[in-house]
Amino acid sequence: MKIAVLGTGTVGSTIGSRLIELGHTVMMCSRTANNEKAKAFVAKHSSNALAGTFADAAAYGEIIFNCTAGVASLEALNLAGEKNLNGKIIVDIANPLDFSKGMPPSLSVVNTNSLGEEIQKAFPEAKVVKTLNTMWCGLMVNPGLINNGDHNVFISSDHPEAKEEVKKILESFGWKPENITDLGNLSSARGTEMFLPLWLQIYGAKKSGTFNIKIVG
Amino acid sequence: MKIAVLGTGTVGSTIGSRLIELGHTVMMCSRTANNEKAKAFVAKHSSNALAGTFADAAAYGEIIFNCTAGVASLEALNLAGEKNLNGKIIVDIANPLDFSKGMPPSLSVVNTNSLGEEIQKAFPEAKVVKTLNTMWCGLMVNPGLINNGDHNVFISSDHPEAKEEVKKILESFGWKPENITDLGNLSSARGTEMFLPLWLQIYGAKKSGTFNIKIVG
Repeated sequence: MKIAVLGTGTVGSTIGSRLIELGHTVMMCSRTANNEKAKAFVAKHSSNALAGTFADAAAYGEIIFNCTAGVASLEALNLAGEKNLNGKIIVDIANPLDFSKGMPPSLSVVNTNSLGEEIQKAFPEAKVVKTLNTMWCGLMVNPGLINNGDHNVFISSDHPEAKEEVKKILESFGWKPENITDLGNLSSARGTEMFLPLWLQIYGAKKSGTFNIKIVG
Repeated sequence: MKIAVLGTGTVGSTIGSRLIELGHTVMMCSRTANNEKAKAFVAKHSSNALAGTFADAAAYGEIIFNCTAGVASLEALNLAGEKNLNGKIIVDIANPLDFSKGMPPSLSVVNTNSLGEEIQKAFPEAKVVKTLNTMWCGLMVNPGLINNGDHNVFISSDHPEAKEEVKKILESFGWKPENITDLGNLSSARGTEMFLPLWLQIYGAKKSGTFNIKIVG
């Protein structure tokens, strides 16, 4: 499949590399066409990787992974362009972490709203699927790194068919179907985004991000 | 130990019953001295249980469990009276769930603040310890009900010695020391309170509250 990865940071390159490993072709993109990190990604993956602007990648991709910083996601998607996003799945991995008021970060969208819902509202013809945003990116694409892969990922969307397509991608990453917890419609993204403050505190207590939560009982 | 339990709902009576089972005496309290639920609690537990007003119980208790609804906690503690709370540990189990705008509830204090911190600010001479607020009350007092007791409880406080005392109570409930995750100071209560929306969504997906999260990895 042709996939657009928005965001050239650690999350984007981890997701992009894993998608290429699984046989997809990936256009890694940012604000400008000649982003150094995107060029390095292409150099590493040769013919299965391309680089471009947000608009180039959104036009190219059959499915879009939003791996930008949450506070910059709407701007990046606006640059990607509504007509390039219409009808496509946007897998939204971002969290609206706001570091501008110091540590720990607060959330810029919270409580009665979520970034996932904001994106869906801004691009009503796209199909936003919120998932993977509750853990370190290394575990997103390789859950088997810990506890034999036995821990949970959440999924939220107003588009049931899009959710099923994304579940297949999650399974290709190594997620067991019984550990993909379907929370229902996209408003449940409020819950997964609001988990981030607790995630950051557990990270602080453990001094490691290589953990996840498993639902027991 | 003489313990005050503020709040006569399911959480308060579950906590109170378990404390009595463990050999403590409990004063169950509410706004009025002759609350029906408090009287029923006393009738059930005979000589180890008492009933009273918030102020009666706060004066009686060496330690205070706040099991009131989060949006009513500050009012209940004000009725309990600052002089009755000074120097004492307040184990704050409440979550600031606001059902006034419909379902799912939002949080009335969130993001850059928490109910735990609000209580500490209102009663600076008390020692607020936030814990147990991330699960169904049956599991709070009896973690062994699921997964052989192997799942996590969080604890947050600005008072390290108070935290150690509360950890001992948690251990008496059946919590294994390695599963009591110390998140540091009380501002980390923001994270545990903000977990509630996700908890409610998992509850909706599972159609059962008899679950908890276990940190793996």
